[in-house]
Amino acid sequence: MNYRKKFVVEPGEKIHLNKVDPSYTGQHESHEKAMPIMQEHIARMDKLQYLLYADGDQSLLIVLQALDAAGKDGVVRHVFSGMNPQGTSVFGFKQPSKDEAAHDFLWRAHQRAPARGEVVIFNRSHYEDVLVVRVHKLAKKSIWSKRYDLINDFEKMLTCNGTRILKFFLHISPEEQLARFKQRLDDPSRHWKISDADYSERELWSKYTEAYEDVLELTSTPHAPWYVIPSNHKWFRNLAISQIIADTMDEMGLKLPPTHVDIDTITKQFHAAEQKQAKLVGKERGD
Amino acid sequence: MNYRKKFVVEPGEKIHLNKVDPSYTGQHESHEKAMPIMQEHIARMDKLQYLLYADGDQSLLIVLQALDAAGKDGVVRHVFSGMNPQGTSVFGFKQPSKDEAAHDFLWRAHQRAPARGEVVIFNRSHYEDVLVVRVHKLAKKSIWSKRYDLINDFEKMLTCNGTRILKFFLHISPEEQLARFKQRLDDPSRHWKISDADYSERELWSKYTEAYEDVLELTSTPHAPWYVIPSNHKWFRNLAISQIIADTMDEMGLKLPPTHVDIDTITKQFHAAEQKQAKLVGKERGD
Repeated sequence: MNYRKKFVVEPGEKIHLNKVDPSYTGQHESHEKAMPIMQEHIARMDKLQYLLYADGDQSLLIVLQALDAAGKDGVVRHVFSGMNPQGTSVFGFKQPSKDEAAHDFLWRAHQRAPARGEVVIFNRSHYEDVLVVRVHKLAKKSIWSKRYDLINDFEKMLTCNGTRILKFFLHISPEEQLARFKQRLDDPSRHWKISDADYSERELWSKYTEAYEDVLELTSTPHAPWYVIPSNHKWFRNLAISQIIADTMDEMGLKLPPTHVDIDTITKQFHAAEQKQAKLVGKERGD
Repeated sequence: MNYRKKFVVEPGEKIHLNKVDPSYTGQHESHEKAMPIMQEHIARMDKLQYLLYADGDQSLLIVLQALDAAGKDGVVRHVFSGMNPQGTSVFGFKQPSKDEAAHDFLWRAHQRAPARGEVVIFNRSHYEDVLVVRVHKLAKKSIWSKRYDLINDFEKMLTCNGTRILKFFLHISPEEQLARFKQRLDDPSRHWKISDADYSERELWSKYTEAYEDVLELTSTPHAPWYVIPSNHKWFRNLAISQIIADTMDEMGLKLPPTHVDIDTITKQFHAAEQKQAKLVGKERGD
């Protein structure tokens, strides 16, 4: 199954999230059977990241957005842990600092955009400025409603400069969120992750859903598509995301950079160094 | 074997690198037999990094220095690939940008210092300013000779703020470097890694050795020790480094942060959410 085709939001398409099955697992029978397939995708990602880094021409930006407990951290951990940390960075977007808030909403995202050769993962992102900001009325509608276009322009500019952008919305059901909250509550080693806002945010589920549906409709573009990933099953979520990333990177035409030295010259230098080394070793031996 | 004790440079100790065996592998018989031990260390590092990140109080700075082809990139790839990329960053120090060169030599290092909760790896570092700068006479001796103390002061300041610092010198023999250059030359897929400077830098081996011996003598401190890692065998290099990092992190007193919510209140909120959810599901079913 091609999950890029299956889960992509077409530009302008209206997604009704309550009609998307968050428990979907496709033809995969179980976690165990899906595991080797995911490992294959991750190995492909790893290989392609090496080329991306070596080539140093293009870059990749991954955006992860979701409601609490949908698994953004889990995706970072399970999908990206195999990647070479040299050339892979993760930025978590928290409440803006005073300095960040004093600038336009795209300023901090722009600073963290990937350099050529890099993979950058946004754990939350500039989309919070049309999500939490909208739901909690932290800005007027006249302000946030302009941001969809501004985001599209910003992402287009990054794309023009060689950045490939993939955006994932991790879709879970309210029942699944509650089950995950219960797991946290039942396990004292996870109590530190519980936030006072967990249940008050949950109360705003339908408002967040509405805000996400607008994001998906208004900001899924050919150059920076959104994917709605069924995420009730963590293993399927990781499988689908890793396939989509690997397939996209496959298409980026990544290749080893050309040799920037003259190999004949280098070969001569190598032989000279080899002879010198042999003499040195001879001297040490007293030959 | 405790490699922290074995490979540490005592403050003020003069190391003669040509007397340190770069092919040392201790009691380990082979790569295959050492592999599970290294995997154990890496698993410990991973577990402790979770606590470091969760706790968000201390941080860890790893400095990697070595001559060409000694394996800095290999350490990043093999020792740190398992770590959660959320909270782990790698910075490669290249020739300074115009902006960086316009500041003092510690400016760019300071900007990349780890925040609380983070692990940062410097692939090359501020030490280049007493290595390449000294060997290539890019600054006068009256300038670079003051830097050892300045580095010690800088690292002490980071330590006072909760950063643990570990510095690794990857020690290879000239023969091993030549063998690795040959591998690059023999494999066209690695030609892009060959630099015109490889052999001219090799000519400066003894000058670099002298510069490194001074670094080790003058900047190995109780709070920021240097370790000289025998690195002719890549697997042993990775094994020793992962053990030293895991053992150090073990001593940092890392623990889960306290719960910052009232669990009774959260439990009540959970039950309220559960009842509400049950009613909703009931309604949908038409109960």
